Amino acid sequence: MPQQYPKVTYKEEGMREGMQIEDANISIDDKVTLLDALGETGLDHIVVGSFVSPRYTPQMARIDELMQKFKPKEGVTYTALALNEQGVERAKQYSPPLTLDRRGNRPGLSMHMCDVFARRNTNRSQMQEMERWPQVIATAQERGIKEASIGANASMGSNFLGDFSADVYIKLLEKQHELWNDAGIEVTAASVGDPMSWCHPAKVEEIFYRVKEKWPEITHFSGHFHNARGMAIPSMYAAITSLGPDDELALDGTIGGFGGCPYCGNGRVTGMAPTEDAVHMMDDMGIDTGVDLDKLIDCVWMLEEILGRSLYGHVSKAGPRPKTIDKLYDMNAPFIETPEQAKHFKTGSKAYEGGVSPWREPIKSPYRERVEKGLPAYEVDGDWPWSEGFFPKPSN
Amino acid sequence: MPQQYPKVTYKEEGMREGMQIEDANISIDDKVTLLDALGETGLDHIVVGSFVSPRYTPQMARIDELMQKFKPKEGVTYTALALNEQGVERAKQYSPPLTLDRRGNRPGLSMHMCDVFARRNTNRSQMQEMERWPQVIATAQERGIKEASIGANASMGSNFLGDFSADVYIKLLEKQHELWNDAGIEVTAASVGDPMSWCHPAKVEEIFYRVKEKWPEITHFSGHFHNARGMAIPSMYAAITSLGPDDELALDGTIGGFGGCPYCGNGRVTGMAPTEDAVHMMDDMGIDTGVDLDKLIDCVWMLEEILGRSLYGHVSKAGPRPKTIDKLYDMNAPFIETPEQAKHFKTGSKAYEGGVSPWREPIKSPYRERVEKGLPAYEVDGDWPWSEGFFPKPSN
Repeated sequence: MPQQYPKVTYKEEGMREGMQIEDANISIDDKVTLLDALGETGLDHIVVGSFVSPRYTPQMARIDELMQKFKPKEGVTYTALALNEQGVERAKQYSPPLTLDRRGNRPGLSMHMCDVFARRNTNRSQMQEMERWPQVIATAQERGIKEASIGANASMGSNFLGDFSADVYIKLLEKQHELWNDAGIEVTAASVGDPMSWCHPAKVEEIFYRVKEKWPEITHFSGHFHNARGMAIPSMYAAITSLGPDDELALDGTIGGFGGCPYCGNGRVTGMAPTEDAVHMMDDMGIDTGVDLDKLIDCVWMLEEILGRSLYGHVSKAGPRPKTIDKLYDMNAPFIETPEQAKHFKTGSKAYEGGVSPWREPIKSPYRERVEKGLPAYEVDGDWPWSEGFFPKPSN
Repeated sequence: MPQQYPKVTYKEEGMREGMQIEDANISIDDKVTLLDALGETGLDHIVVGSFVSPRYTPQMARIDELMQKFKPKEGVTYTALALNEQGVERAKQYSPPLTLDRRGNRPGLSMHMCDVFARRNTNRSQMQEMERWPQVIATAQERGIKEASIGANASMGSNFLGDFSADVYIKLLEKQHELWNDAGIEVTAASVGDPMSWCHPAKVEEIFYRVKEKWPEITHFSGHFHNARGMAIPSMYAAITSLGPDDELALDGTIGGFGGCPYCGNGRVTGMAPTEDAVHMMDDMGIDTGVDLDKLIDCVWMLEEILGRSLYGHVSKAGPRPKTIDKLYDMNAPFIETPEQAKHFKTGSKAYEGGVSPWREPIKSPYRERVEKGLPAYEVDGDWPWSEGFFPKPSN
């Protein structure tokens, strides 16, 4: 696959997007164990939770305890969500290890395209969100900021207002772009957000193409896709393939694909892209995420244990594609039927011991023999299996 | 989304691919009810099961009873799998309603790229599969067939042999193409199969592009993708977008995304693309599947009831994107958190009655007022909300 893809950075959102819609009584010890394990997977950026009012988000009530107990891993960026000044003040106590302003030198004019969702989720209207823009711009100017970001949340549609076309998204971004322009600050980044799972790969492609066409100097993209309609992973794929090698793309997901909020209308079935599936997909595109999939799957299993149910991701259940002789399945493995048996990719052959074995003789294959000798199953440019006589000739 | 997509035909495989890996004791009455309900959804093509030995596929032991009891819907194509002559003879008793040879006038040279899987699944080696080719070609010639198909199963990789590059796939198809050429029969169709879930959108794209580039006269494509690594839906998307409006594409999936076989090594966690998610994705691309999503979701709920567990699909849990005023969510709905509450898209507001409602006053929004009056939330080419003064101006 000789494509040239953008540089992708990935943010694990499970401790926030996931935990915020789960049982508030999950123990802090479980959360600490999970967060510590996530830190060991090679993930570059982990969101630890949010500093919000415990009244309506009791799941985050004990985040201070989590901050005090978890073991930050060197080299990992840890961030947290804060929706107001009070939250930011609380978060500051834990910085470091928390990084407070990840967007750093590229401030953005945030807004929701869905006024209803803004009101439900943040108690502010879209108009009130936009009222902050002059201050954001003024601060950027004071700080001597050179590059800024444009974008909108709920970019593709709303459960309360319906579909938003790419035209509307672009038009809103034009307004933001003008404001930065007037302030003499160059726009080099654009974001799409999708709290209500309206993402679709065709729309993501359209939006990213149009942004690039209109503002070629924009090379930093970010996509935060929710998954209530199963479109988060295809949308990630579309985002990756619609950008080029000089672009940078920031993507978000959660282990197991859990997540959501009580405001969007889909609750716990909202979800995000399962991180293990996203990483596995990118691995096969030659995009290096630095993640150890085996350790990541341990985290998913741990999380499923904590939640007491199976989650949405696939790679944690079936394992990654086995590509090397030490990972390939035993060709004489008996029937493998149940999810427990399917875990053999990690737990070994005892997982399927005693299963039905319908073959009269053990299976043998010249292809497998080659692979076991370290040869490729097929030699594309060699002799095997292309020799004269290998393929049947019609008799006539 | 002004793309031009191929004509897509869709085959529902749940009664075969799904049921064959589930409990053999699921009652025939349940299967009849489900199959009858599927017939009412608008699905064009439904696979009813397989005529195979009950010894190793006890799930299909009572297919005769199913055939006798189900109510075929006029206009729906019903097919069944048969792996040998005996199976074909058994199926013939039920034709009609069964259609026996759906490929009709475009016979193919079938083979598995994975010799090990062929042996495990069908008790035949790849070599034995290919030995049938001369007979297939001779029969085609006798019947005066004008167009033929090339392709391979396990096209992208194997759990027992590892990855297969697109180069290998193309090279094997070249061999098949030569044989048809020598027989004076034009090749106009190509297929990829994927029993071991090695599909990846980037590889599907590469394969389809290369086939089209090499053999422009091939305009009929088919893709049968399994989902153990969550790549079936992205692969469908890639298949659709890599073909053009003069092409035809046949895709397969299962309601709920259930399915698999005991031979592939992933059992029940193999799955296929959930039909409801696939249909929903295509709806938004303007690809008319003729399927009534509401009825299809009824089938998924029925199936989950039969199996006693939640399946992989998303749209059955969160509902389709609501696009019209009668479907949009109530903006004053309280917190929606659990999967049961999320079913409100079908069961109505009683699903979330009594949930927390954190807002001091009922939410109102000028956008929603517009939508309730039948106006678009945003007028892209009109005045709303683009008037002077709507967007904040920096003070400096």
